[in-house]
Amino acid sequence: QSNVTMYGIIDAAVETYTNADAAGNSVTRMPSLGGGMFPSRLGFRGTEDLGDGLKAIFQLENGFAPDTGTQGQNRLFGRQAWVGLQGKWGQLTLGRNYNMLNISTYDVDIIGPSQYGLGSLDSFIPNGRSDNSVAYRGTFSGVTVGATYSLGRDTSTAGGPAGTSCAGESATDAVACREWSALLRYDGNGYSLISAFDRIYGGTGAANGLNSSSKTDSRAHVAAFIKQNDWKVGLGVITRNNEGSTTQPRSNLVYLGAAYNVTPFFTIDGQIARLDYRATNNDTSQFLVRGVYNLSKRSAWYVAAGRISNDGTAALALSAGGSVGAGMSQTGLITGVKHSF
Amino acid sequence: QSNVTMYGIIDAAVETYTNADAAGNSVTRMPSLGGGMFPSRLGFRGTEDLGDGLKAIFQLENGFAPDTGTQGQNRLFGRQAWVGLQGKWGQLTLGRNYNMLNISTYDVDIIGPSQYGLGSLDSFIPNGRSDNSVAYRGTFSGVTVGATYSLGRDTSTAGGPAGTSCAGESATDAVACREWSALLRYDGNGYSLISAFDRIYGGTGAANGLNSSSKTDSRAHVAAFIKQNDWKVGLGVITRNNEGSTTQPRSNLVYLGAAYNVTPFFTIDGQIARLDYRATNNDTSQFLVRGVYNLSKRSAWYVAAGRISNDGTAALALSAGGSVGAGMSQTGLITGVKHSF
Amino acid sequence: QSNVTMYGIIDAAVETYTNADAAGNSVTRMPSLGGGMFPSRLGFRGTEDLGDGLKAIFQLENGFAPDTGTQGQNRLFGRQAWVGLQGKWGQLTLGRNYNMLNISTYDVDIIGPSQYGLGSLDSFIPNGRSDNSVAYRGTFSGVTVGATYSLGRDTSTAGGPAGTSCAGESATDAVACREWSALLRYDGNGYSLISAFDRIYGGTGAANGLNSSSKTDSRAHVAAFIKQNDWKVGLGVITRNNEGSTTQPRSNLVYLGAAYNVTPFFTIDGQIARLDYRATNNDTSQFLVRGVYNLSKRSAWYVAAGRISNDGTAALALSAGGSVGAGMSQTGLITGVKHSF
Repeated sequence: QSNVTMYGIIDAAVETYTNADAAGNSVTRMPSLGGGMFPSRLGFRGTEDLGDGLKAIFQLENGFAPDTGTQGQNRLFGRQAWVGLQGKWGQLTLGRNYNMLNISTYDVDIIGPSQYGLGSLDSFIPNGRSDNSVAYRGTFSGVTVGATYSLGRDTSTAGGPAGTSCAGESATDAVACREWSALLRYDGNGYSLISAFDRIYGGTGAANGLNSSSKTDSRAHVAAFIKQNDWKVGLGVITRNNEGSTTQPRSNLVYLGAAYNVTPFFTIDGQIARLDYRATNNDTSQFLVRGVYNLSKRSAWYVAAGRISNDGTAALALSAGGSVGAGMSQTGLITGVKHSF
Repeated sequence: QSNVTMYGIIDAAVETYTNADAAGNSVTRMPSLGGGMFPSRLGFRGTEDLGDGLKAIFQLENGFAPDTGTQGQNRLFGRQAWVGLQGKWGQLTLGRNYNMLNISTYDVDIIGPSQYGLGSLDSFIPNGRSDNSVAYRGTFSGVTVGATYSLGRDTSTAGGPAGTSCAGESATDAVACREWSALLRYDGNGYSLISAFDRIYGGTGAANGLNSSSKTDSRAHVAAFIKQNDWKVGLGVITRNNEGSTTQPRSNLVYLGAAYNVTPFFTIDGQIARLDYRATNNDTSQFLVRGVYNLSKRSAWYVAAGRISNDGTAALALSAGGSVGAGMSQTGLITGVKHSF
Repeated sequence: QSNVTMYGIIDAAVETYTNADAAGNSVTRMPSLGGGMFPSRLGFRGTEDLGDGLKAIFQLENGFAPDTGTQGQNRLFGRQAWVGLQGKWGQLTLGRNYNMLNISTYDVDIIGPSQYGLGSLDSFIPNGRSDNSVAYRGTFSGVTVGATYSLGRDTSTAGGPAGTSCAGESATDAVACREWSALLRYDGNGYSLISAFDRIYGGTGAANGLNSSSKTDSRAHVAAFIKQNDWKVGLGVITRNNEGSTTQPRSNLVYLGAAYNVTPFFTIDGQIARLDYRATNNDTSQFLVRGVYNLSKRSAWYVAAGRISNDGTAALALSAGGSVGAGMSQTGLITGVKHSF
């Protein structure tokens, strides 16, 4: 009926990349967690006009693996699940919301949540969602402000990009597994300035060393974006202070991306990024170049090449859900089809 | 297309309640299993006219947690999953159906399956669903009769409200895990009289002491309901004989609720209830008062306060999925948004 | 919206069959894995016209148990999940696709994927799906050709019909868990000739003895189908060479089915089949006869009777997901409702 709209993206690809194990073997596979352009999803959303500019809004969004049909994020509506109100004052939503660090990467991370993008260097970025959260966002004369507050950021019992086993909402430790984030963005004529901050709190049993609510993991993002005719250029840096790591808590992630519309049907884009740990040389560099042939506004065929270079004992994999030996590099090639509906 | 209709409710809230652990600490959280008005759901249903008043009908209804996006009832279509026929003679459906005890609470349980409602005293009531069941219901001149029969009432391997691990359909023990229920209801002019009975059979490995098919757990419900202009009042008693408990098999659950439409946009409702075990003093009392501001027919904002008082060693939690120390009381406050689509 | 179409089938039934355990007891139950006509499903599919006869196509199909509402195939979109392009040259799709052995049974397996059908003798047939696969199919002047190639055919960690725990896509063993299949079909005026081949490769930890990528399990299908007025007759043989079995690798599965439209509203169909192992006498025979009363094009009520006879130590169950003692026979009766939407 008219009260709910279905939508989605299915992006399926074949990729091959080098050094998929410590012996240096390559692998050819279909990626599960991401596509060459976007992670696959099926969603349900709706808007009800309540009068006086007020609206009720909701969104339920499932993430799935296009190669196997399994659900992502260890749950049914793993990407988004919220309800709320929207007015001239902005929108206020309750449920599983994107945090403001994730939202701050929109537009300026030109490659977006694709394979061989920023998610390879910091999987928190594309998976920046908070359970049990209240989110606000509003735009006034080109200035967008936003914030989230979560009472327990992650109810998944699985670690990894989709969950860090930090349910929170504890009677004995009110701070455990909480999270807050904030956004400030200005959109000018052909350019944008963006900043965001996100802080997650640890808790007993949480993954990645954040095993106490006295430990936090914080990221600050500053970025800018220019769009002129057929060109777009985005640049940003994410500074992190991760108290879950005793040896290398502080890092900077710098990225620079660009896109050029060669014809209305063909776009070339690419991005370079570097993750630099202050205390160590376990740094990682990455780049991606991609050609997108737009079959329509909703459908595209793409080919992309990417490379990741791990220094020291760094072992970040090029492909989401993949693996790589410490200090090894990987080169990957991916081609696939993206369809939005 | 026109053959299937999507519908649902998303009801997300923030609550805070006392005595969330044995040390007496409070907790602030977003509830998972229920909302301040209704449990969240996404459903698919359809009707096909077959001629001569006969219709094919089906319903598939998923329950989900609005705070995390996870599925409820340990399965995809945990709330309802059935297909059948409907005619002047009533409707006959096969699959996962609500039992008649659950259906008998409609209208007369004025608070409904909300947080701080009857589900806190007996979680079987809002979770009264039977796998592998045939259900019949028909209404004739104001008299509604109904019955269900299940060959194996619960295929979930998880205990708790959503499942008691009693799959049934056993070749060696035909009675194991079966269930039957019946309903008789009369709707007069401004009032209704309701009665229902439900009996579940135990089986090897089933939860809650019902570890043999010779043990049953039975509930009889007698209730009445008056509706006049802006007032509604409902009253009922559920008598239980639970052979799974050796110490306190017999209990009565009495409840009285009322609702008043203060304006077309604002309703106040509330309910008091008491669960009384005959053999012990492990009794529990509960009340709820709630204000609902209707933003539209489909959307509402609400605030509710509830209290549960456990006597003896009773330890029933105020909030669904929560916990409380034996003999302790809890006071809770909840506010949230409900949106139907 | 217009970009995606929901569809599905819900087929719920009650069945009773003999020798459900070694002691010879009968059981009465609702089947989970299949219905009396079709396995239940809920799907989402779409087509976008890209011009010049080119189309973008996708399909996401969930399988569910109509008796309990649980998802099938251990995943959300367990039946199909793919995206691709379609033109005059055929269609090319990426994701979780049906293999060509499965597709080759369409029409010629007159009973289809129902209870007491070919799936009882070889559960691979109705579950012939490949993860991580590329599929092609095209029809030219009555000749249909098709092929699939999978880089890792089965990511499920559960064995049984829905999965054999063979994820593949391994850097150390590129052949592990791969699969390929091919189809050649000719549709004449009132008849069809069909042939297909499917080969799956084993891998470490895979079920059913295929614990090495040097072992394969291959099936070749040759079949023919005649359709005249109210009659349909189908005949086929599937020859198998299963290197996962040391004692009885080679087998033939022969089947003959027919359907007759008694009236526009009533059809009788039936099928006999025999699975014959060359090296042993552990053979199994099966037959089914079914009456289908079509309430409409989309809805039907059916009654069917089936029998399976196991020789030697064969222990194939009549009912999907059921069990039977070695060498025992089973007789089953099933009735239910099928509704398509």
